[in-house]
Order: sequence, then structure tokens, then C-alpha cells
Amino acid sequence: MSDCIFCKIISKEIPSEIIYEDENTLVFLDINPATKGHCLVIPKEHYETILDVPEDVLCKVIKTVKKISSALSKTNPGMSVVQSNGRAAHQEVDHIHFHVIPRSENDGQLLTWKAGSYAENESKSIANEIRSSITP
Amino acid sequence: MSDCIFCKIISKEIPSEIIYEDENTLVFLDINPATKGHCLVIPKEHYETILDVPEDVLCKVIKTVKKISSALSKTNPGMSVVQSNGRAAHQEVDHIHFHVIPRSENDGQLLTWKAGSYAENESKSIANEIRSSITP
Repeated sequence: MSDCIFCKIISKEIPSEIIYEDENTLVFLDINPATKGHCLVIPKEHYETILDVPEDVLCKVIKTVKKISSALSKTNPGMSVVQSNGRAAHQEVDHIHFHVIPRSENDGQLLTWKAGSYAENESKSIANEIRSSITP
Repeated sequence: MSDCIFCKIISKEIPSEIIYEDENTLVFLDINPATKGHCLVIPKEHYETILDVPEDVLCKVIKTVKKISSALSKTNPGMSVVQSNGRAAHQEVDHIHFHVIPRSENDGQLLTWKAGSYAENESKSIANEIRSSITP
């Protein structure tokens, strides 16, 4: 897509520190890393979110996420994989991407959430609602 | 694995609110949800992290993540997908799992990080280090 910053990185119109590239996927350093070595893994075809990316492309991307996680694991004890969809989830670039973030104990990164709970029977009704929304 | 809580959920030894199940994957509600409808997607075979799960199993899991994201998107504007590896990344159950967390504007969840930056030439040397760790 002509106005997509990640498409411009793919076409090398915008420079980036490319870590890995194959026919379908690209990995490059996030210029504003959560931790050193924070990588972004993207498909070369433009899709906005996990909702519109075809399954076969998604498989290729997650295989590259695994490949990069393995590489990063040689020097880091942990790895956070994060994929955000929509502004409500703080997606900033509308080209599906997986963050692969090297983690170490007490690295000061949050990346957690406040754990809630369900009232009695609330989980049942929410579960029913989700089940009925699943497309076979 | 006999002492794995997720394996016990798969075998129905421990009850859970199961949302979806197929031959290879299971989806159930996180009992301590970040937001209502927070699901966990797991493979039925026991693997600890993204490092040891085989590629074909990982593909099946991410397809189920997409399926559940689609279902949840009918009532939620955003979705955070999070997969943690190792204690340093706050992985609490050693059976690979993807969190699929419905998001809405101002839901009060953090799930973000402090954006850093690289000193001059630092990104180049880090990129070189990662590239040299990639297994072909």
C-alpha cells in the first residue's frame, strides 16, 4: 500500500535494520525498542490485522516469529510476542506485525495486565456469547 | 504432562469454560481475565514455549487464535494477542499459550512498554548479532 510505512520498509524506500527476509516475510529492528533487539515480523503482502490476513500467510509469519525467537533466545532468557489489532489495542501501523521482545528479569518493562475475575455465572454467559460468534 | 494444569484442562480433569475445541487445539476462558472474554489458546500436545513447539502445531494454534479473534471482534473494537516465553517474560504455566484479549478504548489495561532508542551504530551491532544467531 502506497502510504504504509511498513510497505515502504519492504520496498527499501525507507531504510531499516533488516534482520531476516524470505519470500513472504520480513524482520527488522523496531527503532523504538522495548528492549535491545526488539524485532518486528511482518508479511510482505499488506494486511491490516489478524482478521484479514489469510491463514497461509499467517502461518508463514508465525514460523518467522519462531525463527527469530530462537535466534534471540541465544542471548536472552525470555521472549514476549505481542500482536496488536485496532487502535483500542494500540496498533500504530495498519500492517499486521508481531513484536518479538527479548526479556530479562527486572527489565522494567510492563507488558502485563491487571488480573480481574468473573462474578458467578458471568463467565458462562460470556463463554456462550463467544461460542455463538465463532464462524465454523 | 501429568503435573501441567493446562494438560489437566485438556483432559477435563480440571473444569474450565471451554470456548472452542478441535483435534489439535483448545480455547478456554482465562479465569483471571485482563478484560471480559480473555481467552487462552493452546495446543493439545504439551510443549513449553515457542522454541520447542513444532512449526505445524504452531500453525494450527495461530489459526485458532485467528478464529477466536474473529469471534471476539464481533463485540470488541480491538484485540491484543500475547504469547510469553520464560519466567523473564512472566510465563506462568509451562504449556505454550496465546492470550487473546478483547480491547476497548480506555479499558485501563497497560500491555504497553516504554519505548527506548538506540545510540549511534548500536542498532547495527545488535542487528549483526541477531543475524548471526539465526539458524537457516
